[in-house]
Amino acid sequence: MRVLGVDPGLTRCGLGVVDGGTGRKVSCVAVDVVRTPADASLAIRLLGISDGVEEWLDRYRPDAVAVERVFSQHNVRTVMGTAQAGGVVALAAARRGLPVVFHTPSEVKAAVTGSGRADKSQVTGMVTRLLGLVEKPNPADAADALALAICHLWREPMRQRLAEAEARAAELARKHRARLAAAAKTAKTKGAAR
Amino acid sequence: MRVLGVDPGLTRCGLGVVDGGTGRKVSCVAVDVVRTPADASLAIRLLGISDGVEEWLDRYRPDAVAVERVFSQHNVRTVMGTAQAGGVVALAAARRGLPVVFHTPSEVKAAVTGSGRADKSQVTGMVTRLLGLVEKPNPADAADALALAICHLWREPMRQRLAEAEARAAELARKHRARLAAAAKTAKTKGAAR
Repeated sequence: MRVLGVDPGLTRCGLGVVDGGTGRKVSCVAVDVVRTPADASLAIRLLGISDGVEEWLDRYRPDAVAVERVFSQHNVRTVMGTAQAGGVVALAAARRGLPVVFHTPSEVKAAVTGSGRADKSQVTGMVTRLLGLVEKPNPADAADALALAICHLWREPMRQRLAEAEARAAELARKHRARLAAAAKTAKTKGAAR
Repeated sequence: MRVLGVDPGLTRCGLGVVDGGTGRKVSCVAVDVVRTPADASLAIRLLGISDGVEEWLDRYRPDAVAVERVFSQHNVRTVMGTAQAGGVVALAAARRGLPVVFHTPSEVKAAVTGSGRADKSQVTGMVTRLLGLVEKPNPADAADALALAICHLWREPMRQRLAEAEARAAELARKHRARLAAAAKTAKTKGAAR
């Protein structure tokens, strides 16, 4: 399975493609950053990101896209732009029928380093080691994009098993309720017939 | 000039096309709301909005797109979705080379009703009157989209004159600095020759 990880941003949008192998084996296919000029309008910047991502989707043909879920804990203006960049990436993936999953920063950190509160340098260090890279991906957005892809590769099978288990549980609950309703109806009919 | 006004949102995205005539004359070309199901994924919802807007851009061929600028004063989760919907609209316009301008809610209210603090019903009422509509646009998102288009038609000429004036002022300042630098250089050369 091949995953495109995206660390969205208007100034720098990190892109990383990772292939998953058997077990926890992962290998880096490509990593880069799309930049858009700060003096361009929002629409033009979003267009730049969209074009960059479309090009990567064409070139690397991933099976899924993993995007960082943005929270508004920091500067509101920046967060809006980041959310919009992520939205444009999700749109490009959806246009091609690719699944898009959003992962929170702490999910990504936990998946890659074992701790949801790891700092940037720990994430970069682990990504470099896990992928057997000769040097650290630079800037941090590039390393984050790779971390997102790894997180997705490792979490997705579990997420799917969980979703299937939940669907089975919901189906059993539905059947149980139906049996209860049928029993209640029978009791009522018997009562009326008495 | 024809403007597509967009009140972005994932659940309801208001779209309104307005033609501007001489002076402050405006007429309604089309108004509607694009809805996306709350149980669909974010990517699929953004795709629905993008497709809806693309269809309107094809059908009505506006000269510009006016989008409501979102602030994160309310529910953060909702605001993110709204910002992303607006981003997707801006992207669709930028792809066609159309200018996209974001207007704040208070700019829109002020343009249409004269007060930046007008409430929803006042905006709807004025939009209905200004466009000579037989009945009020419904839901409010539809009325807001029309208000955005009107706001853009009325503000844009002034905004452009202001931008031109600022560009002229910047050019004059640049020339002035260049003359000062040249004078300083001449004075220095004379001093060295002495």
